[in-house]
Amino acid sequence: MAVRVAVAGASGYAGGEALRLLLAHPEAEIGALTGNSNAGQTLGALQPHLLPLADRVLEETTPEVLAGHDVVFLALPHGQSAAVAEQLGPDVLVIDMGADFRLKDAADWETFYGSPHAGTWPYGLPELPGARAALEGSKRIAVPGCYPTAVTLALFPAYAAGLAADEAVIVAASGTSGAGKAPKPHLLGSEVMGSMTPYGVGGGHRHTPEMIQNLSAVAGKRVAVSFTPTLAPMPRGILATCSAKAAEGVTAESLRAAYEKAYVDEPFVHLLPEGRWPATASVYGSNAVQVQVAYDEAVGRVIAISAIDNLTKGTAGGAVQSMNIALGLDETTGLSTIGVAP
Amino acid sequence: MAVRVAVAGASGYAGGEALRLLLAHPEAEIGALTGNSNAGQTLGALQPHLLPLADRVLEETTPEVLAGHDVVFLALPHGQSAAVAEQLGPDVLVIDMGADFRLKDAADWETFYGSPHAGTWPYGLPELPGARAALEGSKRIAVPGCYPTAVTLALFPAYAAGLAADEAVIVAASGTSGAGKAPKPHLLGSEVMGSMTPYGVGGGHRHTPEMIQNLSAVAGKRVAVSFTPTLAPMPRGILATCSAKAAEGVTAESLRAAYEKAYVDEPFVHLLPEGRWPATASVYGSNAVQVQVAYDEAVGRVIAISAIDNLTKGTAGGAVQSMNIALGLDETTGLSTIGVAP
Amino acid sequence: MAVRVAVAGASGYAGGEALRLLLAHPEAEIGALTGNSNAGQTLGALQPHLLPLADRVLEETTPEVLAGHDVVFLALPHGQSAAVAEQLGPDVLVIDMGADFRLKDAADWETFYGSPHAGTWPYGLPELPGARAALEGSKRIAVPGCYPTAVTLALFPAYAAGLAADEAVIVAASGTSGAGKAPKPHLLGSEVMGSMTPYGVGGGHRHTPEMIQNLSAVAGKRVAVSFTPTLAPMPRGILATCSAKAAEGVTAESLRAAYEKAYVDEPFVHLLPEGRWPATASVYGSNAVQVQVAYDEAVGRVIAISAIDNLTKGTAGGAVQSMNIALGLDETTGLSTIGVAP
Amino acid sequence: MAVRVAVAGASGYAGGEALRLLLAHPEAEIGALTGNSNAGQTLGALQPHLLPLADRVLEETTPEVLAGHDVVFLALPHGQSAAVAEQLGPDVLVIDMGADFRLKDAADWETFYGSPHAGTWPYGLPELPGARAALEGSKRIAVPGCYPTAVTLALFPAYAAGLAADEAVIVAASGTSGAGKAPKPHLLGSEVMGSMTPYGVGGGHRHTPEMIQNLSAVAGKRVAVSFTPTLAPMPRGILATCSAKAAEGVTAESLRAAYEKAYVDEPFVHLLPEGRWPATASVYGSNAVQVQVAYDEAVGRVIAISAIDNLTKGTAGGAVQSMNIALGLDETTGLSTIGVAP
Repeated sequence: MAVRVAVAGASGYAGGEALRLLLAHPEAEIGALTGNSNAGQTLGALQPHLLPLADRVLEETTPEVLAGHDVVFLALPHGQSAAVAEQLGPDVLVIDMGADFRLKDAADWETFYGSPHAGTWPYGLPELPGARAALEGSKRIAVPGCYPTAVTLALFPAYAAGLAADEAVIVAASGTSGAGKAPKPHLLGSEVMGSMTPYGVGGGHRHTPEMIQNLSAVAGKRVAVSFTPTLAPMPRGILATCSAKAAEGVTAESLRAAYEKAYVDEPFVHLLPEGRWPATASVYGSNAVQVQVAYDEAVGRVIAISAIDNLTKGTAGGAVQSMNIALGLDETTGLSTIGVAP
Repeated sequence: MAVRVAVAGASGYAGGEALRLLLAHPEAEIGALTGNSNAGQTLGALQPHLLPLADRVLEETTPEVLAGHDVVFLALPHGQSAAVAEQLGPDVLVIDMGADFRLKDAADWETFYGSPHAGTWPYGLPELPGARAALEGSKRIAVPGCYPTAVTLALFPAYAAGLAADEAVIVAASGTSGAGKAPKPHLLGSEVMGSMTPYGVGGGHRHTPEMIQNLSAVAGKRVAVSFTPTLAPMPRGILATCSAKAAEGVTAESLRAAYEKAYVDEPFVHLLPEGRWPATASVYGSNAVQVQVAYDEAVGRVIAISAIDNLTKGTAGGAVQSMNIALGLDETTGLSTIGVAP
Repeated sequence: MAVRVAVAGASGYAGGEALRLLLAHPEAEIGALTGNSNAGQTLGALQPHLLPLADRVLEETTPEVLAGHDVVFLALPHGQSAAVAEQLGPDVLVIDMGADFRLKDAADWETFYGSPHAGTWPYGLPELPGARAALEGSKRIAVPGCYPTAVTLALFPAYAAGLAADEAVIVAASGTSGAGKAPKPHLLGSEVMGSMTPYGVGGGHRHTPEMIQNLSAVAGKRVAVSFTPTLAPMPRGILATCSAKAAEGVTAESLRAAYEKAYVDEPFVHLLPEGRWPATASVYGSNAVQVQVAYDEAVGRVIAISAIDNLTKGTAGGAVQSMNIALGLDETTGLSTIGVAP
Repeated sequence: MAVRVAVAGASGYAGGEALRLLLAHPEAEIGALTGNSNAGQTLGALQPHLLPLADRVLEETTPEVLAGHDVVFLALPHGQSAAVAEQLGPDVLVIDMGADFRLKDAADWETFYGSPHAGTWPYGLPELPGARAALEGSKRIAVPGCYPTAVTLALFPAYAAGLAADEAVIVAASGTSGAGKAPKPHLLGSEVMGSMTPYGVGGGHRHTPEMIQNLSAVAGKRVAVSFTPTLAPMPRGILATCSAKAAEGVTAESLRAAYEKAYVDEPFVHLLPEGRWPATASVYGSNAVQVQVAYDEAVGRVIAISAIDNLTKGTAGGAVQSMNIALGLDETTGLSTIGVAP
C-alpha cells in the first residue's frame, strides 16, 4: 500500500517532524511540500537534518499543489486549516496538527482563540476511551495539542477509575520547539539557555480548555484545570507534573491498578516500574510516553507525571499514529518507542 | 570592621559560592578553608573560577584550623555540623548552610533524615515576619534550604494575609548544582542536558517539612504541602510554581496588595509588574528574588511563582545576608541584586 | 536472514547506542547483553530510552554468555577486547568499538596506551579507499575512534587528491557522551553546561596516531597532525574544524571537485552545497556526515569541516555499517541519514 | 570622583553588560540610556536582570539626550558611531564598543565592512605593549572585538618573544550572545542547543583583519591568520584555540617564560599552572582571562588557548577597564576576576 502524503507548512518544526517520521514510514510516499513564506527554497536550506529531501523545493499552499494526495498533513497557523481542508475533498485524509478542530465547545474556542469556531474533527489521541473507533476510516483528524497529550495521558486513568477529585493542578515544562520557529527575542538561545520561566499563567493558555474537555469526558463530570506551562532550556520534550485530590478510599495499590489497566495494551505508553520516574531524554525523538503515578498519603493527592517528546508523540508522531488507524494500517507502523539518548 | 571568616567544606558548590560572595564583601577577610577529602589541594584546582584564591590550600576540618575566626560557614554533609559547631565556642558566629538546625520538630527531623535531631537555630530567611529580630546578634544561624527559600517567598504573603487555603501544591525546577558536586551517573552532563525529570515525588523530599514549618507559622494554622521537585538542564536557578485554593472573597487586587505590602521594603525581593513573570536567568548569580502572583478566577486558585539562584539567595547569599544582620552590618553589604544575563 | 547479536558492555553509551540501532535493524536479533559491574540489573534501569528492552537483564561478560551468536559487539574499556575476542572463535563476527585493534604500528600503541599491542583488525571506515574490500567477509572489525572518523572524512579527499600539504591542524568539539558514562566531577552537568574547555592538548590525545595513520595512508606520505579536542556543552556530536596548507595550484574549484569525486556515491556522507556549513544538530542520532570545504585564498589553506554524531557514525553506527558490509547486507540496512532536529 | 555615564544602545547585549558593570562601579553614576527602536520602554522589560534600573525608560539616541555626561558608551550597529561621536564634543570620553574605529588600515575596513573608513581611535586592549600609554587621558577609545581580544591575549606573548612563525591558525567557539539580540532563526534556542556549527569560514569573518593588525604589530612583521569561528550552545564565553609553527629553538620552557613575562603583572590575565586548561565557565561574568600554552614537540607547534567572557572582557569589561585608564582611575575599579560558576 503506497500512501501519497503532502505536508502543508513543511518549513516549521511540526511540518519538519512530520517529514522526519514519514521518511521512515514504510507505506508513505512523500509528495508535495508547501510553505508560503518559504516557497521556492529547498528543504536542505530549511530543514538540513532531512538529508533525503535536501533537494526538494517548497511550493505555495494551493489546492492545485495539494491535489492528488491520499493524505494531507496541515501544519499551519491556527485559523487557516478550515479553508485549506474544504478544498481538498471528502476522500482525502486531512490531518490537522493545528488547533482549529480540537474543541467541541464553540464558546471555548471563541474565548481562547478570538475567532469563529470551525468545527470539531475526530480527536487523534488513540489512548483515550473510544478514540480509536472514531478514528478508524475517518477522513478528518484533529491532532491534540502537545500539552493536552502529556497531561491527558498522565491523568485520565485516575479520572476514568473515579480516583481523582474534580480539580487538577498541572505544571508542565516544555522544550523551546513547542514555541515554534518564528524568531522572537525571548526564544533566542542566549535567553533560554540557563533559564526556566513560566508563561500563560493563571488559566490563559489555549491548551487549557482542551485538557478540561478530555478529562471531563473520561470523568463523566466537569474537571477544573489549573495549568501553568513553563519554558525549559531544551529543544524538545514535555514533562507534565499533575496532581489532584484523591477520592475517598484511594490507595497506592488501587491507583497503580487503574494505570496498569489503562495502559497494559498500549503500544506507546510505558507505565514505569515503581520507583522510577519519567525523563524527557528517554523519549527524545520517539513516540513513547513515560508515565508514573504516586499517592502522597500525607496530603491525600494523586501525583501523576508524564514525559513525551512534544514534536513526536505531542504532534507529528501522534498524527502518524492516528493516520495509521484511519488508514487501517497497524497503529505502530513507522513509529519508534526508542528514545535518542543520552 | 574586618570580619575574619572561615569556610568548612570549601570544595563543594555551597562553599565555593560562599567564597565567591565573601571575596566581594567589603568587611570580610577570608581565613581558613577546609575540605576533608580534598585537603592539601589548591583552590585553583577545585574552584578555578575563584581566581584570587587560586593558590590557597585546603586544610582538614579541625577545631585548630577553624579557631581564631569571627565567623565560620559550614558547608558540610548533613549530620556533621553539630559536632563542628560545639567546638567553636559561643562567641563565634556559626552559619550552617546544611540542614541540621532548620527544623523545630524533632520528629520531622527524624522521619526525613533518619538521625537524632541536633536542635534548632535562628532561621536565616530575613524576609519572614520576625526573622530579623531573631538573627540580630545571634551567634548561630541555620540557613534555609534552597527550595524552601523559593517556595516560602512565593507563598508566604498570601498565607500571612489569610488569602490562601491550607494546602499548597508546588512544582519546582532546579538547576543541577542543587544536587551537589559528588559525581553520580544521573548528574552527568550527558544525562541532564536536554532532559527534565522529577525526583523525590509523593512527599518524600527532605525540604517538605521545612516548607510546612514556614508557611504554617505565617498562616497560624497547619498548611499541607504537596511538593514535587524536578531537575532542569541548567547549572543554577530555581523556578517555584506554587498554588493554593484562594480564600473566600479573594480578588486579584487584594492578592497583589498583600504581596506589595510584604515586599515593599525588601531589598532583595522584586515583585514584578503585572504581566511579567520570573525567570531564573534574571537572577543568575545574584541575591535577588523575582516574585509574581496571579488569581486564576476560573479555578479559584492563587498562583504564585518565584525565581531565585539556588546557590546565591538559595544558599550562600542568604547566608551572607543573615550574617550581615547578625553582625549589625547593613543587610545588603556585599550582595548584588543584578543577575548575570544573558 | 536473522543475525543473532550480543553486546558486551551494554550499560555504557557505546553499547546503548549499538542497541538503539540494532533494535531498528531488520536483520538483527538481539541476544545476550553483558555488563560486568551492572550484571543483574535490568536495561530499563540503565538505559531507560530503550523501551523494548526494558525487562532484559544484564549478564556477566563470559564466554558462555557470549556463545551462540553470529555477531558480538564489544564496548569494553581498552585492553579488554583481545581476551574476549580470543574466546569467541573464528566464525563469529567480532566488532570492537574500543581502541585495541585500530593501530597498525605497535610502537604508536604502546606510546599512547602504555600496554602491549594486541594486533590490527580490518578498519571500519568504509569510506576510506580500499576499506570496503577489507571488510567484506571479515570476522573481525576495528571500529574507528569518533574523532578520527570526523577528521578523516573531513580531510582525506584533499590528501587523496594531493591538494593538501603534510601537516594538518585540527580543533574538534565533542559532546560529553564521548567521555563516557563513568561519573567524574568535570563531566557533571553543573560543570559542562555553559562551558567550553580543551583537553589532551599538545599532541597527547590517543586518537592522534589514528588520524595520522589514516591521512598518511591516503596521502602516500607521512602527514603530521596537530590535534586539539574540546568538550562542548551538548550530549552528542562532533564538529571537526581541520585545515592544511594548500598544495601549489589549488583552487576552490579543484578542491570541490576532489570532494565531489570522493563522496558522490557515498550513502552517508553529504557534501553540503556551497555556502552552507555542517551543524551537529543536523546529524543528531543519525549515521550521516556533513562535510564542507573551502579554500582560504588569503592564507593559502584548505579548510575542511565535518559534523557527525559521535555515538552513531562515530561509534555504533559506523560499527553497524561495517557489520552490514562484512555480512554481505546492503550497507545502509537499519541506518538512517535523518537527524533528530531541532 | 563621580563620573556621569550614558549608554547609547542600552537594550542590546553589549549595552546591558556595560550597565551591569557600571552599576557595580564605585565612581560611575548612570545617566541617560538610549535605544532607538525601544525608546519609551522600561529597562525592566528589556533587561530584567538589571533590577536597580528596572524603572528607567529608554530615550532616543540624540545629542540632547547624550549631552552632559563625562563618558558615553556606544553600543551601536557598525557605521553609526562616528556620527554620534562627532556631536559629543572633544571633552567627553567616548567609548565605542562597535567596530568603527578599530582598524588602522582603511582598505581593510572597506574590504570587510563595505563602507568608508571612519578613522582609528586608541585601542582598548591594555595588555598589548604600548596600549596603556595611548589610553591614558584619551577621550576616544575603540573597544576590541571579542574574538580579537581572546586571540590576541592567547598569542601575542609568543609573537612578542619571536617564538612563533608568521601564520596563526585559530579556531574559536563563542557563546550565542556574541551574535546579538536581534532575533534570527538560526539563533533560536531550539536551533543552538545541542549544536556546534561554524560560520564565516575561509577568512571572511570581520574580526580577522583586527587579529592580523594586533599580532603583526607585536611581531614586527606581517602575521597571516586563518580564523574559523564556531557557535557553541552556551550564552556566553569564547574559547580560542590558537596555534602557530614554533620558531627555531623553541622549548616548552622558553615558551612558558615568555608568557610569564607578559602576564606577571597583568591584573586580569591568569596564566594557568601547567597541566590545567582554560574553561569559559571559570570566567563567566568576570573580566578575567585564562591562558595556557603548550609546545607540541611532535609537530613543532605552539598551542595557545584562552578563555574569556565575550560580553565582559570581550566587550563591556574591556571597555570599563580602558575607561578606568583613560580617567586615571585604578585599572581594576569595579571589575571582578571571579567567575560565576558552576
